[in-house]
Amino acid sequence: MLDHFFRPRSIAVVGASRSPGKVGHDILKNITRYGYAGAVFPINSEASEILGKKAYPSLSSVPHDIDLAIIVVPPKHVLAVIDQCGERKIDAAVIITAGFKESGLEGSRLEQELVKRAKQAGVRFIGPNCLGIIDTHAMINASFAAGMPVQGGIGFFSQSGALCLAVLDRALPDEIGFSKFISMGNKADLTDTDIMLALAEDDNTKVILGYVEGVADGRKFMEVASLVSQKKPVIILKSGITTSGAKAASSHTGALSGREAAFDAAFKQSGVIRAHTINELFNFAIAFAHQPVPRGPNAAIITNSGGPGILAADACDKSNLQLIPLHKEYVDELRSFLPPVASFYNPIDILGDAGSDRYERTLQTVLKDERINSVMVLLTPTAVVDVAATAQAVIRVANALDRPVLTSFMGKKSVEGSAKTLLKHGIPNYDYPEEMVASLNAMYRYHVWRHKPAKRMQTFEDCRRKAERVFAEAQKENRDRLNDLEVHDVLRAYGFAQPKSLVARTSDEAVAAAKGIGFPVVMKIISPQIMHKSDIGGVRVNLNTKKDIERAFFDITTRVRNIMPTAHIVGVLIQEMVPRGKEVIMGITSDPQFGHLIMFGLGGVYVEVLKDVSFRIAPLSTEDAHEMIRETKAFPLLRGVRGEPEADIEAIEHSLLKLSQMATDFPNIVEADINPLIVRDRGHGVIAIDARFLIGGE
Amino acid sequence: MLDHFFRPRSIAVVGASRSPGKVGHDILKNITRYGYAGAVFPINSEASEILGKKAYPSLSSVPHDIDLAIIVVPPKHVLAVIDQCGERKIDAAVIITAGFKESGLEGSRLEQELVKRAKQAGVRFIGPNCLGIIDTHAMINASFAAGMPVQGGIGFFSQSGALCLAVLDRALPDEIGFSKFISMGNKADLTDTDIMLALAEDDNTKVILGYVEGVADGRKFMEVASLVSQKKPVIILKSGITTSGAKAASSHTGALSGREAAFDAAFKQSGVIRAHTINELFNFAIAFAHQPVPRGPNAAIITNSGGPGILAADACDKSNLQLIPLHKEYVDELRSFLPPVASFYNPIDILGDAGSDRYERTLQTVLKDERINSVMVLLTPTAVVDVAATAQAVIRVANALDRPVLTSFMGKKSVEGSAKTLLKHGIPNYDYPEEMVASLNAMYRYHVWRHKPAKRMQTFEDCRRKAERVFAEAQKENRDRLNDLEVHDVLRAYGFAQPKSLVARTSDEAVAAAKGIGFPVVMKIISPQIMHKSDIGGVRVNLNTKKDIERAFFDITTRVRNIMPTAHIVGVLIQEMVPRGKEVIMGITSDPQFGHLIMFGLGGVYVEVLKDVSFRIAPLSTEDAHEMIRETKAFPLLRGVRGEPEADIEAIEHSLLKLSQMATDFPNIVEADINPLIVRDRGHGVIAIDARFLIGGE
Repeated sequence: MLDHFFRPRSIAVVGASRSPGKVGHDILKNITRYGYAGAVFPINSEASEILGKKAYPSLSSVPHDIDLAIIVVPPKHVLAVIDQCGERKIDAAVIITAGFKESGLEGSRLEQELVKRAKQAGVRFIGPNCLGIIDTHAMINASFAAGMPVQGGIGFFSQSGALCLAVLDRALPDEIGFSKFISMGNKADLTDTDIMLALAEDDNTKVILGYVEGVADGRKFMEVASLVSQKKPVIILKSGITTSGAKAASSHTGALSGREAAFDAAFKQSGVIRAHTINELFNFAIAFAHQPVPRGPNAAIITNSGGPGILAADACDKSNLQLIPLHKEYVDELRSFLPPVASFYNPIDILGDAGSDRYERTLQTVLKDERINSVMVLLTPTAVVDVAATAQAVIRVANALDRPVLTSFMGKKSVEGSAKTLLKHGIPNYDYPEEMVASLNAMYRYHVWRHKPAKRMQTFEDCRRKAERVFAEAQKENRDRLNDLEVHDVLRAYGFAQPKSLVARTSDEAVAAAKGIGFPVVMKIISPQIMHKSDIGGVRVNLNTKKDIERAFFDITTRVRNIMPTAHIVGVLIQEMVPRGKEVIMGITSDPQFGHLIMFGLGGVYVEVLKDVSFRIAPLSTEDAHEMIRETKAFPLLRGVRGEPEADIEAIEHSLLKLSQMATDFPNIVEADINPLIVRDRGHGVIAIDARFLIGGE
Repeated sequence: MLDHFFRPRSIAVVGASRSPGKVGHDILKNITRYGYAGAVFPINSEASEILGKKAYPSLSSVPHDIDLAIIVVPPKHVLAVIDQCGERKIDAAVIITAGFKESGLEGSRLEQELVKRAKQAGVRFIGPNCLGIIDTHAMINASFAAGMPVQGGIGFFSQSGALCLAVLDRALPDEIGFSKFISMGNKADLTDTDIMLALAEDDNTKVILGYVEGVADGRKFMEVASLVSQKKPVIILKSGITTSGAKAASSHTGALSGREAAFDAAFKQSGVIRAHTINELFNFAIAFAHQPVPRGPNAAIITNSGGPGILAADACDKSNLQLIPLHKEYVDELRSFLPPVASFYNPIDILGDAGSDRYERTLQTVLKDERINSVMVLLTPTAVVDVAATAQAVIRVANALDRPVLTSFMGKKSVEGSAKTLLKHGIPNYDYPEEMVASLNAMYRYHVWRHKPAKRMQTFEDCRRKAERVFAEAQKENRDRLNDLEVHDVLRAYGFAQPKSLVARTSDEAVAAAKGIGFPVVMKIISPQIMHKSDIGGVRVNLNTKKDIERAFFDITTRVRNIMPTAHIVGVLIQEMVPRGKEVIMGITSDPQFGHLIMFGLGGVYVEVLKDVSFRIAPLSTEDAHEMIRETKAFPLLRGVRGEPEADIEAIEHSLLKLSQMATDFPNIVEADINPLIVRDRGHGVIAIDARFLIGGE
């Protein structure tokens, strides 16, 4: 995929310049200086030669095939160049030029036009407003970045060109190896998903790294990320999560930043490993690029000092990793050569006077225990230890393995060289033990993701058909919400049990209804204008007698008329009192980038005060429903605490799946809540007490 | 303080060696090589000269006064050397020698003996089992670490010698300045508190840094840390959180506490800034060592790139800092010289083509806005920007200020040199924007701590006197818990309102009692052997009639006899039904290092399932009580949600203070719960429904 971007046989630089310091010069220079073997054509209307390459006045005057055009002309000329690309059958372009969507309204219009013209011309492009692209294996540096990373397994794409520069500058002295650098710019044509797919198929790329501020099509992103993350780890730093961050995001590249909950759910559901800082992005990347993924949580720590060992153990405790003691056989083996005051358990403390030989032998012994899935080696630069020899020892032992070995040789002065040696030989070294543990943990979590069973999707027949009329009606009437009877019908269509209920228009009807349903009953005002019925006194519960009903009917209707005189009162709903159970809430909300999200939480306080909810993007798989219930902190309440019976968790899962299907069936649902949904004891199902639906146009 | 350690006029190295590589050699070499101006006496029974210094066979043979002895002889000789120190009136020693408490039982005994003998000899000492001490201003390196840090304002003490080595090794190439390095070793004599006090008084030390695994006397630690942190920032990395383990506890408070909770509370109450990783320890230290503390939360970010700006803004949003827009006047000023597509708000994006002049002018303009308390400068190494010149510009503007300026010049290759220049001129630079924000935030939180009003302690007269008899009685009978009647008396002594109650020994007595109290009532078994009454069916509520009472009496007593046939049944408590209110729980637990902790949480699920509790170490100040209630996530429930009335929060605070005084009055309380404490509406107080007390020997 995208071969003309990453394996072009020839490149034209449109807007190549003779003046050093100009982007059109620097890019041409970068292309020519790092060993690119194909033909390079500077395009410049005034020069006949630039940097030793024959220059041409226009693309049309180049007497050779061109695979890739790098465009650095001013914004107003870009469209014409794209047209020329089309004429020359150049189907790949990188548009470096800025001054498009990121610069305001006029730029935004220009960018729209650019997309249209490129489509007409049959040109796919990266950018505009980007830094360019680098491919270390094809030895192309078509960017104006200073420097070329060494060859390696990390493929990096970034919405921010600045971050490309910073990452590259950080990588160069430590010789951290990259396969590709792709500065995405405004992502007007090729997007994150195109690049992820290309990187997935690129044999030189072992791990995919991304910096993302927002995505245009959340669904596509998830679909592609799910596919790609099955093949290779995808690690993404997502910014703009907060209100102030989001503000900066929209004034930066004009990207709409997705809401945090949507991205979090999307990453979880598609196996994307989320990095929370730039530092983490790096730390995770070098682990994945160089070491195999651990096949289980059991880790061992070898250290020559107590304090850092404890810090590493603390970090493990906060992670999914487990420090298990070695099998007795290997503890005995350790005892045979370590000093008696060493610690033979885990962390294994081989003491401050340990030399490289002791490290090597300990590492060998630990690895004999097949239950140990990964090893972390900690080193403090004591006077005794030969840091370089220890690095060599680790390299010797570790590289013969299919189990990951990570190191944290701490300090800087005494260890910097060895850290580089370690990395060069495939052992990622970390400045601090906490970073090492976090990186190994990310790998382990990826292992777990990779071995999840395939997602199972459940569909419910006929529901859509049964509810269609209701939504059609509401839409025809241009309403933005469903009335109570419609809500009732929709819930019934999707098989949600509801309390028995009847509508009463008079006090007498109410009494009759209550008698029909059986005491005690609940009464609720029915009015399309009233969303939160109980807030205005429109709900009465536990009504036991004829007199109760009559008084309640009078109270409710009077109260509503006083508070909301303009509200249309359809009547009063007489409803059976529902048996006690746990209250949960589930809902639908929509995100501009990802579409419908499904929410789950325990009702009342848990949702409103503690905000203890979980989200997934619809449609939910059965596993999604299973996990999102268990993700809430209050979940143990459903399992039953203090001898309470377990609630019908399976029925909640089922309900979530039905709600998810509802969201899929009716894309014009803007928001919905089923609140409360009463969950009865296991085996006894759930009952939807109340719900509301906001709908929009198609 | 400790002048003979840090300003000795002469030093003896007992156990000095001629053999390079030996600790006794390396230390002597370190002492002599870094400019120490005092006299140095190697003590070695066999050599006449070591490293050009005249050697003496023993301390007694040195014909000069000795201020400080560095002891590196084998463990079995250390005690004799200490005796000789006493004879020579040497009152300060650093014991490097290992083989004491850390090596097992025998070493532990030797260490006890060492402490005794040193006390007799009038010698204070650091160690044993340590790396030594460094004072850059006195130019003493009495350690066997490789290298001497440059002079600076960071005073570091560490329980782990290895961490000293790692920190020093990390600091050397970046020329991070330190005042003192103190490897504490086993802390057998001088402890963290002694060193904190010494560092507090040391004019060269601007910030105190510590690595702590545990403290011997938690109370003293808090007392000293509270004092010192008023004067200078104290930043501590505490490890060993996993060693606390799950301790067997028979109360909620006990189960929810642990050493981690105690340390967390202690740090909060004494103004210690907690670092969570070694990296944070460094990051915070360089900020505090070089820049003034911000006097408010308002921060500005200047950046030459959008992406990193967003990441910094995201980090601010998770912190206590606020990015406020500049005053219009200064926005207009920015507009006058920045390109129109720049972002004038906050983060202020001066664009990728910014040079050092644009940075300087922007920084100057931002600082004109007096509401801005701190500035963070972000730089991505673009082709245009002159990194070194920008560093100089920041140095010029920032150093004339009493407001902090921090930088994150990102990358490595292009910025490493300038980062060093910045630091040399007092501007801490961070590899990543997130680290910069976290460090500034730590400074701001310290500012807040420093400006808290003085703690107010409230005492309650007479409570102790009234409860004394109960505790004395229980202790006399060697019981480990108070019985229900005693609990009642203790609560009454401390002014906790309780439901009306009477004890019934027969069914008839129960009926009579209920009639006296008034229906409805609650009934509870009274037995010293039964802790969780309701778990075994020993509680009945809402009993309305004579018949109810009779049946409940029979049920409860039969049930208890069946389940716990050996339990002694004192009787059944008949209690008034308490008006509805919010249930909270408060308790006392004890920590081996810090003594009594007070816990607070909302009752039931919030405590048991969500573990939403807060801790403080007793005695509580009124502010502690105020804060710990508000620290729980469920706090809004007390304020009242959805139109509910506010609960009597003041009465909760009052109760916490009384509970705290109870803990102080009766040190033999091991654990206590008041659960539930019913909180009525504001102004109506609280009622203690149930409580239990575990007590121990004096």
